[in-house]
Amino acid sequence: MSERGLLIVFSGPSGVGKGTVRSKIFEDKTNKFEYSVSMTTRKQRPGEVDGKDYYFRTREEFEEMIRQGQMLEYAEYVGNYYGTPLTYVNQTLDQGRDVFLEIEVQGALQVKEKVPDGVFVFLTPPDLVELRDRLVGRGTESVDVIDSRIAKAKEEIRLMSEYDYAVVNDEVALAAERVKRIIEAEHYRVDRVIGRYRHMID
Amino acid sequence: MSERGLLIVFSGPSGVGKGTVRSKIFEDKTNKFEYSVSMTTRKQRPGEVDGKDYYFRTREEFEEMIRQGQMLEYAEYVGNYYGTPLTYVNQTLDQGRDVFLEIEVQGALQVKEKVPDGVFVFLTPPDLVELRDRLVGRGTESVDVIDSRIAKAKEEIRLMSEYDYAVVNDEVALAAERVKRIIEAEHYRVDRVIGRYRHMID
Repeated sequence: MSERGLLIVFSGPSGVGKGTVRSKIFEDKTNKFEYSVSMTTRKQRPGEVDGKDYYFRTREEFEEMIRQGQMLEYAEYVGNYYGTPLTYVNQTLDQGRDVFLEIEVQGALQVKEKVPDGVFVFLTPPDLVELRDRLVGRGTESVDVIDSRIAKAKEEIRLMSEYDYAVVNDEVALAAERVKRIIEAEHYRVDRVIGRYRHMID
Repeated sequence: MSERGLLIVFSGPSGVGKGTVRSKIFEDKTNKFEYSVSMTTRKQRPGEVDGKDYYFRTREEFEEMIRQGQMLEYAEYVGNYYGTPLTYVNQTLDQGRDVFLEIEVQGALQVKEKVPDGVFVFLTPPDLVELRDRLVGRGTESVDVIDSRIAKAKEEIRLMSEYDYAVVNDEVALAAERVKRIIEAEHYRVDRVIGRYRHMID
């Protein structure tokens, strides 16, 4: 009997650096888990590749996916949909391979309802000062917008308790390494591996 | 507020190679966890150091410790007591340092009753043929004794489901590395670290 893969859900407040840490994790080509590409209705930017950065779909197509129950999770953000198509995730897990999702907190909680035995990893800033510095450093947003994002981040950090693990993003390489250790350790959890050893006790 | 250390309970069937894997783990001097020396009433062997290999005590002293509730776990084996004194474990955990116990399955289940939030790691042989080869290879026991140890090992392997993690002892260095990964990952569990981040949401 082949074991089902692990669903790894990597999330955290907006601005914490999820994408950067995820890129660092996937620099390691020996990883045994696969990245699930998100679907979005936002416009494709120059350089972005459909099916690699995102699946770019129209609003109508996305809403049809939702209606047919084909989204594992989705959320609307600044007028666009973002979400995870269910089929790829299920097929990969069924083949015994792990799937790595990098998604927003709102979506992660939806996944937790549907897949409670997933591994939920929360990326947290060391503190809010650091988060603010990061948002200011991007230089793309006004003070008002940054204030509202900090307020939203506080709400999201409150949801940390819904997760299995919390990893601090003090340094990208360290944070990436921690996430990889967590994924490895989760493969040794008794409830996941006990089937391998049943032949000794039956 | 300083966090309490982790109690790591490393166990598995007799003959699986717990001591060898534990020695390998402790070769790494960067480990942050401390080995809890067991107490026994068996005779000190040449080369063994009291307080390092074991605390060597008389039967009367050991039974007095039991009566006073000073043993975290204990068992009698071939006419001798073996067990873990409570004081060292508690003091070390209170200081925020992790404690590593290498104990028999019977003792591990006693610890689980008292310290359910410990990290319970089961070392398993790849299969019973391998376990038999290892016992035969030691060349110290008759076929009858080996048969009865295999039968006992089967009983112990049935208790794997009481543990959090199962690590296979296919190669000592690999098994040691897996245990270290598990210990590291456990430090990122949300319920252990959430206190560090409360300042952001209060």
